Amino acid sequence: MNLILLEPSEVGSDGIVRVSDGRAAHLRNVLRVSAGQTVRVGLVDGPFGSATVTGLDDDGVGLRCTFEADPPPRPRVDLLLAVPRPKVLRRLWAQIAALGVGRVVLTNAERVERPYFDTHFLDPAIYRPLLIEGLQQARDTRVPEVSIHRRFKPLIEDELEGLSGRALRLVAEPGGSKSVSETIRAQMGVQRVLLAIGPEGGWNAFELDLLGAQGFERVSMGPRTLRTDTACLALLALAHDALSPLR
Amino acid sequence: MNLILLEPSEVGSDGIVRVSDGRAAHLRNVLRVSAGQTVRVGLVDGPFGSATVTGLDDDGVGLRCTFEADPPPRPRVDLLLAVPRPKVLRRLWAQIAALGVGRVVLTNAERVERPYFDTHFLDPAIYRPLLIEGLQQARDTRVPEVSIHRRFKPLIEDELEGLSGRALRLVAEPGGSKSVSETIRAQMGVQRVLLAIGPEGGWNAFELDLLGAQGFERVSMGPRTLRTDTACLALLALAHDALSPLR
Repeated sequence: MNLILLEPSEVGSDGIVRVSDGRAAHLRNVLRVSAGQTVRVGLVDGPFGSATVTGLDDDGVGLRCTFEADPPPRPRVDLLLAVPRPKVLRRLWAQIAALGVGRVVLTNAERVERPYFDTHFLDPAIYRPLLIEGLQQARDTRVPEVSIHRRFKPLIEDELEGLSGRALRLVAEPGGSKSVSETIRAQMGVQRVLLAIGPEGGWNAFELDLLGAQGFERVSMGPRTLRTDTACLALLALAHDALSPLR
Repeated sequence: MNLILLEPSEVGSDGIVRVSDGRAAHLRNVLRVSAGQTVRVGLVDGPFGSATVTGLDDDGVGLRCTFEADPPPRPRVDLLLAVPRPKVLRRLWAQIAALGVGRVVLTNAERVERPYFDTHFLDPAIYRPLLIEGLQQARDTRVPEVSIHRRFKPLIEDELEGLSGRALRLVAEPGGSKSVSETIRAQMGVQRVLLAIGPEGGWNAFELDLLGAQGFERVSMGPRTLRTDTACLALLALAHDALSPLR
């Protein structure tokens, strides 16, 4: 935990908040704070800030916060992800939030098994804390927006434009010849990227055609076929690097 | 499983092998092979090949293999990794093998907790099958070489040269200003990269100085602080992409 994230509803108008869960344990046992000390905090979907420890006891830690004016920008990569196996999905939430993702559009596909939609890892009550965990790891406040779509065709043809707007659309397929990074670098002025990642076994021909018709360019990371979770993390890293290169 | 890997000791000089474990289950239940059919195989640390199914029953599947002359090249990225928490290490083995790594040098560091060295995930009997799982996923035959070092200083000063040779040496630190990908791209003719990834909490100042003195350049993936496993996968993806760009 490299940032203490606070929900706006927790913080009084005077900036006073009392935390008593894992964050309190972290402040006490890892950061070993004492009264008067300052720690870095953030408001969920809001700005960063700093907090002075006003007191601590066995039940919790009191903080008085001041926040910056503006929230950090939303990560510039969105994911269009065929719903993966529950075990993979569970692992993914915190890691994709840590790497940075603006929106996660979860979709059905032929090779998505029907029971995958019944997992509680698609329940906001379960996945939101995992997203927050990733943000606290990576020091970000912006929770990825998540939506779940059981019908592929209307999603791709009608709804996606409203969800991800004018992003550069890329669909990852193993063995293709165009690289993710070069494709992003070759386009001047790309502001956002929408990465489509298929199910284990890949998109079928119909799905690939539909994605192609809606402007998704096929890209690849080379000849290796990766598990969905490995591919997601690798592609997110490559897209962020190509969008915002450090020099 | 996208490739059936066979141990050299399993295969007779006539190319005949009988498999009866998870590979047999995969051939029967996923690939649904029948006698006479051909499947792609590989020899562990050896060449790819093809195999004709000679017969199958409830106990196993018989294959007659022919192999290519040469093994595929070894992946061009090595990892110098401070031993992570056992849970993280367990998750990493298959994923780093899938992304491709030539050698994994596991080391102690100040912020590595001592019990981490006692985990059975440092036992070849446990981690080798996980490496093989990653290779079978990614269609590779080259098992990463693994060594474990409890003393940091002699490793870095004396032993590393023999282990990883003339690789470009990079140490990842959050918040630095030089990017992994640009640093690799800027050096003409880089053949191998050795990526150093510290413990949760980072390398200490002594360790960073020692790495610096031994030619490790500090690089970064940006301001986000990542969990060791997320960082490993992201950095491996960036290094491979910068070394072998598809155009």
